[in-house]
Amino acid sequence: MAAKHPPQITDLIERLSKLPGLGTKSATRLALYFLSCDVSEVRALTNALTAVKEEIKFCSKCHNYTDADPCPLCSDQSRDSGQICVVESPADLLAIEASGLYKGLYHVLGGVISPLSGIGPEDLHIEQLFERIDGLSAKGEPIRELLLATGGSSDAESTCVYISERLKNREFTVTRLARGLPVGVDIEYVDLGTLKQALEYRRKT
Amino acid sequence: MAAKHPPQITDLIERLSKLPGLGTKSATRLALYFLSCDVSEVRALTNALTAVKEEIKFCSKCHNYTDADPCPLCSDQSRDSGQICVVESPADLLAIEASGLYKGLYHVLGGVISPLSGIGPEDLHIEQLFERIDGLSAKGEPIRELLLATGGSSDAESTCVYISERLKNREFTVTRLARGLPVGVDIEYVDLGTLKQALEYRRKT
Repeated sequence: MAAKHPPQITDLIERLSKLPGLGTKSATRLALYFLSCDVSEVRALTNALTAVKEEIKFCSKCHNYTDADPCPLCSDQSRDSGQICVVESPADLLAIEASGLYKGLYHVLGGVISPLSGIGPEDLHIEQLFERIDGLSAKGEPIRELLLATGGSSDAESTCVYISERLKNREFTVTRLARGLPVGVDIEYVDLGTLKQALEYRRKT
Repeated sequence: MAAKHPPQITDLIERLSKLPGLGTKSATRLALYFLSCDVSEVRALTNALTAVKEEIKFCSKCHNYTDADPCPLCSDQSRDSGQICVVESPADLLAIEASGLYKGLYHVLGGVISPLSGIGPEDLHIEQLFERIDGLSAKGEPIRELLLATGGSSDAESTCVYISERLKNREFTVTRLARGLPVGVDIEYVDLGTLKQALEYRRKT
């Protein structure tokens, strides 16, 4: 029988290899790194992991991850409270923030409706979005724009349709991110779906 | 100012991104995964990390990682104690074990001599190798073969030369892994160094 790692190492490799983006090779490399590095470094990492799980919650307004409720974005008075941007995930929120072009508030869905994966509207923060919008109207602070900034998957598409349908005949505008050619891409290499969108939504110059 | 993650998440991403093979993007992805996964999963991972640091030591004979001293390989009576295979790392040991072609004992150097990185023989388990060989001779159980199974870097090369020099005029054979063409590679794509080795060490058929 071939030699194996001690069970503690095997266990660590197995757990690491199940993490997104890691395979057995990279997990083994990481495990051997943890073995050779200073114990204080591993302790700092386990403490950071524990802190994240213990101290980070959802913001009760926008459902982004936060250590304070409401989160810094929701309690930032300098932001435009007349706009709410609906995103799938905290990562998407940060990407939009990094663009520096949006100064309103956010609402994190926590995913998209996906019947095939058994994810319905009730598994996301969609009802909370409607309640939030209604609450703001009731308070006399209605929003002007709801920007649906979801990704390009067909599930994301249906989620947008679902939200739009539920918000028909409201006073505010519902907008979507523009679709078309990405920057720096040759037309001959663009996939058919993107090209169709680019043609369909073509603009006057 | 663009929004940021709460400090706990930023700290976790920073620590993760310093790990070998991970960049900021993959570290962020991992951190967000840890946020969304079950707390029990994170606890299992931190426990596995702690266990590895607390319970895994070096084998006092071969210097491989082990939770028992001597390690299972060193205490396996069915293995040929007349052969010692010198490897750079535990990962190399496992690769050779996985081949199933070697049934002797091992000695893990913990790296190679690398003057540029400030790693001298005293930073590795090289003296322990000489002591181990001498100890076996003194016990009347001398080895027959010392297989230097280090990698192809120039530092590995010098390490082999260093060990060979120190073991001149001994009773046992010092061998090296064969060098030449890897399996499945066209000659036109082989690097010059490998091709030179393949020519230099050509064999009669």
